[in-house]
Amino acid sequence: MRYEFYYWPEIQGRGEFVRLALEEAGADYVDIARRGPGVDAMMKFMRGKRGKRPPYAPPFLKAGKLVIAQTALILQYLGPKLRLVPRSEADRLWAHQLQLTVTDLVKEIHDTHHPLTSALYYEDQRAEAKRYTQEFWRHRVPKMLGYFETVLEERRGPYVFGRKVSYVDLSLFQIVEGLRYAFPKRMKRFGKQVPRLIELRDAVAKRPRIAAYLRSKRRIPFNESGIFRAYRELDA
Amino acid sequence: MRYEFYYWPEIQGRGEFVRLALEEAGADYVDIARRGPGVDAMMKFMRGKRGKRPPYAPPFLKAGKLVIAQTALILQYLGPKLRLVPRSEADRLWAHQLQLTVTDLVKEIHDTHHPLTSALYYEDQRAEAKRYTQEFWRHRVPKMLGYFETVLEERRGPYVFGRKVSYVDLSLFQIVEGLRYAFPKRMKRFGKQVPRLIELRDAVAKRPRIAAYLRSKRRIPFNESGIFRAYRELDA
Repeated sequence: MRYEFYYWPEIQGRGEFVRLALEEAGADYVDIARRGPGVDAMMKFMRGKRGKRPPYAPPFLKAGKLVIAQTALILQYLGPKLRLVPRSEADRLWAHQLQLTVTDLVKEIHDTHHPLTSALYYEDQRAEAKRYTQEFWRHRVPKMLGYFETVLEERRGPYVFGRKVSYVDLSLFQIVEGLRYAFPKRMKRFGKQVPRLIELRDAVAKRPRIAAYLRSKRRIPFNESGIFRAYRELDA
Repeated sequence: MRYEFYYWPEIQGRGEFVRLALEEAGADYVDIARRGPGVDAMMKFMRGKRGKRPPYAPPFLKAGKLVIAQTALILQYLGPKLRLVPRSEADRLWAHQLQLTVTDLVKEIHDTHHPLTSALYYEDQRAEAKRYTQEFWRHRVPKMLGYFETVLEERRGPYVFGRKVSYVDLSLFQIVEGLRYAFPKRMKRFGKQVPRLIELRDAVAKRPRIAAYLRSKRRIPFNESGIFRAYRELDA
């Protein structure tokens, strides 16, 4: 099966969680919007011109006749096919629950630089971003990353399901990488509180296909249009 | 199967989307935290004292040995069992995509009164709430409810999948009800732009089991601790 992947071509964004899974599995996929008139093709889907189940927003995946949107759902769908999730129903449900918690975290990370609205520039909500970010690191990061740390403590590791990697681990790798990019000082300090998560990050980074992907041009560098943005003033 | 449902007992909150599905299906369920020491039982799960796959947060559902958290995932799991989703894979995937878009909307609705952090009172972020709410009604409501309206325009139904109700419809009912409670003036005006969504709301409200539920004591009234809060100053 050749998968068609649709996402904004200039950013890692939410699409990166899917790209990491496709790359780890060595899946046959085309990153449509990064080729020629691919963005036009993407917009046609969203205007409902291609199929009767229009996606709300990118990323979405075309798998044969199916069109699947929402990052966590794409991963839930791909997980068994790419062997990136265990077999039991309980584990698969839990993997999706963990991924949806990653989704919640990603939204909050986005809101550190856009707490009021995405319709205005960061510069127009700087004071609010500062306050949001402070509360985010005081309450939300400890709670959410702390939850994943507890999950990892109960496992033989390095991964959420033990010794076999899952799509959830790839996403947690991306969270750590992104937080390090956006908040290097804060993350250096906070990282000590979540040693298992840092070990997981290191284990994922060493996986041959992930390492090759990170070195390739397919990996778009972090930048200030994505979810994770390096604004020094927020990294107090 | 008797389902055990776990959620905060004083609010509709995110749990209400699950309650509506259980009620519409006439399912056998116990709303655990609303009985005696039920909140303690709920907290035990979250501290990982009951099973090796701890939920991050309520709501969660216990179905036999399975413990399932995240509202949209609970509904995805229950959908086929309660006959609240069509049979085809494409429809089931799409139903979950729609529900995850409802999830995104619910988070933004919550942020109208708590744009900076849930750790502070509304009164401590009033000015920001006002700005957030303005942008929310200017950009986000038209985009998100507009998407659902477009979906409904393509269907024969009153419902998303036509003439048979799904869990997505019950959630959209709750969104309209909640927005009417929190923003009566704004919603009165905006409602004219989404006539199909209003028709869907009316169709759901008339369903015998939903109507009986809404009249019952099991339906917790809207209040200022939930997702939808009636702050007059935000309803300009």
